[in-house]
Parts: sequence; structure tokens; C-alpha cells
Amino acid sequence: MPRNKQAGLFITLEGGEGAGKTTQLARLVGRLESEGLPVYRTREPGGTPAAEALRKLLLFGDEHFCWQAEIMTHMAARADHLAQAIQPALEEGKIVICDRFHDSTWAYQGYGIGEGRREVLDYISSLRRLVGGEPDVTFWLDLPCERARQRVAQRGGKVDRYEGQKMQFHQRVREGFWKMAECDPDRIVRVDASQSVEEVQEHLYRLVHQQLAGRAA
Amino acid sequence: MPRNKQAGLFITLEGGEGAGKTTQLARLVGRLESEGLPVYRTREPGGTPAAEALRKLLLFGDEHFCWQAEIMTHMAARADHLAQAIQPALEEGKIVICDRFHDSTWAYQGYGIGEGRREVLDYISSLRRLVGGEPDVTFWLDLPCERARQRVAQRGGKVDRYEGQKMQFHQRVREGFWKMAECDPDRIVRVDASQSVEEVQEHLYRLVHQQLAGRAA
Repeated sequence: MPRNKQAGLFITLEGGEGAGKTTQLARLVGRLESEGLPVYRTREPGGTPAAEALRKLLLFGDEHFCWQAEIMTHMAARADHLAQAIQPALEEGKIVICDRFHDSTWAYQGYGIGEGRREVLDYISSLRRLVGGEPDVTFWLDLPCERARQRVAQRGGKVDRYEGQKMQFHQRVREGFWKMAECDPDRIVRVDASQSVEEVQEHLYRLVHQQLAGRAA
Repeated sequence: MPRNKQAGLFITLEGGEGAGKTTQLARLVGRLESEGLPVYRTREPGGTPAAEALRKLLLFGDEHFCWQAEIMTHMAARADHLAQAIQPALEEGKIVICDRFHDSTWAYQGYGIGEGRREVLDYISSLRRLVGGEPDVTFWLDLPCERARQRVAQRGGKVDRYEGQKMQFHQRVREGFWKMAECDPDRIVRVDASQSVEEVQEHLYRLVHQQLAGRAA
């Protein structure tokens, strides 16, 4: 059953750095569009002018945010993204595919930075309920941290506030995704990202069509 | 009884545009400091590097925020301000005097922009509980909107996102402060800002010393 009342389908793609989200997303969107499906591709933090302005501060700003402010700024960006981009696209019947969403806050801020402390997880959960907008389905690209680090090193380029963290941080992030997947198995599908690009792509593609078939039924 | 467990005293100054907050605050702080009292002067939105960066977006950015995101970004800035500036100053036993705080969100976002809609006020209240940090006492400089507009026009200078709004907006903001003062009469003291600068200053000065005497008792 779809979680959203809208005509569209809301898919989020989650995972740690180097799991291949960006590559997979581009291919998946291209493939669905070539079939004539209406796809709206977006990302977090960001997706609207206000949320992109917040993204710059969160990922590349020099300012230190206390953990509460960091979480709440991510959530503020998300609230804007939902109201001004995601919800309208869903109402138009589009397949919204978003690179990172609520589960990334849980994993990065809750486990990576907050080290899984109850106080931090409760804070995130309270805000998550207030913001709303749960996806219909989430594909979690999971990769051991050592493999992920190798891929990121090969990729090069600008490193943001989170990518530059130590290995232990990324291990906690992965633990956060595991915990969330255990708590919400109906929504979150784990995809083994250690497979080849083609294998992962095939898996994601099939999952999207399963969702579409489920909604048509 | 002080609301904060800390040794310090947390005072907020509230009011619409042109009520004389900035002038009164500067005089009040100067007078208290000349008596050797430890004062920490600050303002919202802002007060820490991260919160000041958010202030720029909120007051002078071109990006449109949906109402939820605007409220949450103000609250994120407040959370940072509380954790990284206000709470530490209170723990050091300082008299913290803050230009705008929770009540401004209630008045500007709740009444000015949100037009007092239940949905918006409930959203603000939920976040206010989560952020916490209620002041010990709030001085509300109240001035009829016509008088305030004249003062702002005489002052000149850069106009922010809220100052540039129409008269009806500012009337709703004033209504918001009235409602809050009715709801929380033990904390909020209305100060008649149509009096002379000297009269208002004397009133504020006496109120601070009443608070200090009450705490010493």
C-alpha cells in the first residue's frame, strides 16, 4: 500500500559515501525516462532554493553547529523541499527519486555525530514526525566502509563536512542505516552495493517496477 | 522563582519594529555594566557564528522559505544560540539580555506570516518545547503600529524581510505579542514604548533590579 495519498511514487536512495548512489541514480532515472515514465529527480540536503542555501552552510560552511542546530537545519531544509518540490511533484503523479532523506539524518546525525545516544535519536524522531513526508520505499545501497573508502579515494574532488570524517564515523553511519532497516523492514530494501554497477542497477530497476506494479494492482 | 537552574538571569526584550529595542538595550546594558554587573548582550536571530549565518538567509536572503522551513530555521538558529552562547553565559552567572527570542517567532511567524492559524501556532509551540530555554523575564516594548512606522521611516537604513511588510502585517505581529502576554503574564511585562526614551529606560532599569532583588531574596 502506498504511504502517500498522492498519485505519485516517492522513492528515496540512501547509503554511506562511495556506495554509488549518484551513479545509480543517474542511470535509473535515464532508464525510467526512456520508458516514458514521469520522473522527478532531487537530492538532500537541498532541492529548493532555500534548502540549497542551507545545504551550503551544512556541508561546506566553516561555522560549527551544535548537534541540535545541525539536525534542525537539515530538517528545515527538508520541510522546504517537501512543501515546495516533493509534494507538488507527487500530486502531479510523478515518480520522485530523492538522493538521501530522513534516514540519512538518522544515520549521519544520529549515529555518526550523535553516536547513537538516546537523547539525539529522540530529538531526530520528534522532528521527523513534525516534518512528515515518509517515502513509499527506500533503497539502501550498503557497502562495507573499507570498500567505500577506496571508491571515494579514487573519485577525488571536493570533500564535504561528512565525507572528511574518520573511518569510525562512517562505521557508525552504516550501523545507523542497519538499525533503521531493522526497524522499518517494509519500507527499506537493502541493496548489496558491492556488486557490479550493472548488477546493482538491475536490482534497483526491478524494485521500481515492482513498486509500480504493486500500485497498479 | 527563576526559571533557569543557572546562577545567571535570562532577560529577553521583545517588540515590533520601531519600538526602540536597540536604543533601550544599549542604554540598559551600559548602565548595568557601569554598576559592575556581569552582562552578556546578544540578539536573535543570531548570536553565534552558525546562527548569524542563518540570520543572513532569513532576513536578507532572496530565497523564499515555506512557513514550516522559516520557523524551523529560526528555531535551529535559536538552538545553536542557546547551546553555544546563552547557556554558557548563564552558567557563568551573567545577566543575559537578548534582543528578540521565542516570542518574536510567535508574533512574526505565527501571527504576522501565519495569520494566527492554529496549525502554525501548534507547529511553533512543538518546536518551542523541543528547543526550550525559556527566559526568566521578558520586557515587551509595546507601541501602536502608526507610531512605530513613523519612527522606522525617520531612522532609514537597510530594511529586512519583516520590516518591509505592510501595516496589516505589523498589526498582526502586535496582536501576537498581546496574545502571548495574556497567556504568560508572570513572565511578560508590557512596557509602554510611547513614553520618552528616558521614561522607558527608567522602567526597564527598575524591572531588572526588581528581578535581581527577587533572586537574592
